[in-house]
Amino acid sequence: MEHYLDNSATTVVSQKAAEKAFEVMLKCYGNPSSLHAKGLEAEKELELARNLIARAIGCESDRLFFTSGGTEANNTAVFGACQALKKRGNKIVVSAVEHSSVLEAVKELENRGFSAEYIAPEKDGIIPPQKVADAVDDSTVLVSVMTTNNELGAVNDISAVVKAVRKKKSSVIIHTDAVQAFGKIPVKAKKSDVDLLTVSAHKIHGPKGVGALYIKKGVRIVPLHFGGEQEKKIRPGTEALPLICAFGEAVGEFNIDENYQKVKELNLYARKKLSAIGGVVINSGDNALPYILNISVRGIRSETMLHYLEQNEIYVSSGSACAKGKPSHVLSAVGINRDLADSALRISFSKFNNKGDIDALAEFIEKGCKSLVKKI
Amino acid sequence: MEHYLDNSATTVVSQKAAEKAFEVMLKCYGNPSSLHAKGLEAEKELELARNLIARAIGCESDRLFFTSGGTEANNTAVFGACQALKKRGNKIVVSAVEHSSVLEAVKELENRGFSAEYIAPEKDGIIPPQKVADAVDDSTVLVSVMTTNNELGAVNDISAVVKAVRKKKSSVIIHTDAVQAFGKIPVKAKKSDVDLLTVSAHKIHGPKGVGALYIKKGVRIVPLHFGGEQEKKIRPGTEALPLICAFGEAVGEFNIDENYQKVKELNLYARKKLSAIGGVVINSGDNALPYILNISVRGIRSETMLHYLEQNEIYVSSGSACAKGKPSHVLSAVGINRDLADSALRISFSKFNNKGDIDALAEFIEKGCKSLVKKI
Repeated sequence: MEHYLDNSATTVVSQKAAEKAFEVMLKCYGNPSSLHAKGLEAEKELELARNLIARAIGCESDRLFFTSGGTEANNTAVFGACQALKKRGNKIVVSAVEHSSVLEAVKELENRGFSAEYIAPEKDGIIPPQKVADAVDDSTVLVSVMTTNNELGAVNDISAVVKAVRKKKSSVIIHTDAVQAFGKIPVKAKKSDVDLLTVSAHKIHGPKGVGALYIKKGVRIVPLHFGGEQEKKIRPGTEALPLICAFGEAVGEFNIDENYQKVKELNLYARKKLSAIGGVVINSGDNALPYILNISVRGIRSETMLHYLEQNEIYVSSGSACAKGKPSHVLSAVGINRDLADSALRISFSKFNNKGDIDALAEFIEKGCKSLVKKI
Repeated sequence: MEHYLDNSATTVVSQKAAEKAFEVMLKCYGNPSSLHAKGLEAEKELELARNLIARAIGCESDRLFFTSGGTEANNTAVFGACQALKKRGNKIVVSAVEHSSVLEAVKELENRGFSAEYIAPEKDGIIPPQKVADAVDDSTVLVSVMTTNNELGAVNDISAVVKAVRKKKSSVIIHTDAVQAFGKIPVKAKKSDVDLLTVSAHKIHGPKGVGALYIKKGVRIVPLHFGGEQEKKIRPGTEALPLICAFGEAVGEFNIDENYQKVKELNLYARKKLSAIGGVVINSGDNALPYILNISVRGIRSETMLHYLEQNEIYVSSGSACAKGKPSHVLSAVGINRDLADSALRISFSKFNNKGDIDALAEFIEKGCKSLVKKI
């Protein structure tokens, strides 16, 4: 029996979402830009999905732009805002624990003449809003702080970040990567007053290959892609209709409160069972998003345990899937020492998990501790 | 009964391709970057699709990079090559009849300090290789000439373009947008000796939202996106696995020769029937790709006829879907006067069309000529 506990890497697509994509591919196959009825039918589906997702993000649907995923949305935000504002300043303030699609974009901008200040998190992974604001100066054009960290689950108070930053300098563009938060806790694009907000489908039982960027009214960004008139020229190219419609369907199935309660209980159950195993250290803060539980198993390298667990059909991660086994910049930023970081495991839940998954995980981590520790 | 004759805008997804995407979403849902068995299973599917498509393009599979579609692949080629070579020169030589995802990218580069020379086609839409080579000078870094034009069907001899250009200057990067050619005529990336070649899935019964860029070994481009390690960092972001696998499946179904013969016959049949209608002018050259037939109906605006036809479930285009009804830069480039251009229709076939579709089209164009012409 399979125990999939790597839901922050990706999730299974919900049956309804997959069926929607299938139906769109075979029946509603027109090009949304075509002027005839087949095109209009496709455009209608596109806008239906946009409405559903915009409502879930808390914004007007005409402020939501589809992309090929979280990476493209984050890149569009970071490059797009800096490119648009480069005459006004060249400083970026960014949390040190962002996803690589923010950090690598910022690094590239540093190569192109921008400067960046990286804000370290507290021990629990949370970025202090005032520290962000303190780093903002006259030359700052962009602030980027993720809503929820993908390795630890630390949840930032984005409204507080926005307030502190705007108090220091009102005209800064503020972006938040909400990929790991969307569908799990309420995400309120307009209410939080951010300028740019990123979401993705495949972390919430939608398909891989589609995401979206919220852009506040009046905020100008330079697009990454140039071509046709799609997505108001912010993101040209024929829309990925099957994926977008499936994304909409997955969002339509959101039941944030119910799932949160369920996953919270699973998380507490997992913390209790895993803490009881000698050598297990919990890295995620008590206040972390319950969907993510980062632990270390002293003396056993992440990948050794990961492969031991997978032999028993238990799937967890050694960090972010996008980092493919490289040492975690997140764990080092919160002061977890190299030994513990090298033995870290990210367990990540979805609504489809149950206590049986945790029992299997705890059983094999305990067994692994006994059989693997001697091999090192 | 529906007569879909807008296959150059987009095609219906084949049953097998749609089923593949469906299966991947529900079963093979791992993240290809995950280190465990669910990830490896997904990675295997990814590489299987890559192999299938690379074989069809005539390149090694490690030189093929998946993108979100033709626009992104064209943008990656144009921006990526110019960014990589900007210290060597700043001139771009490009055909005047490229798709907007090439032309708009070139225009943006002109804003950023590059210069561009636009090569006009002959009357049949074909770009003379020597004219391209003549425009190449010491400062030229990129040449971009499409394999097949999306409005007229004009087919360029890309091997001849490459030979002429390399004779003038060997170190120029040569890109071809093969979106409208792939799957219809043999596309030979390696043999033609181009550096960069673009393909897309949704024109050949694959889904919308996925394409690929061939990059010749040794050719360096600066990526458009920055983030994780996917696609060797040329195109980071979690791979759109359902779409990529469906793309592979669609390519696996290619039967270029058989379909070409079938469509060629349909095209000749259509030319004969449509030419017999008073007021119909054929804009596509006799040597054009048979999948595309561009005509004008004198005195009746494109959109008027398009909407008349759609009322009878006949779907054609007034030009490129991406241009959404704007006057065609392609028709004006081949010297078609404004009146004829304003009454142009693009009829585009697939293997699923038959003579019945043409009969219906001819019948209603003829009826339209009678009933619409007086209304203008």
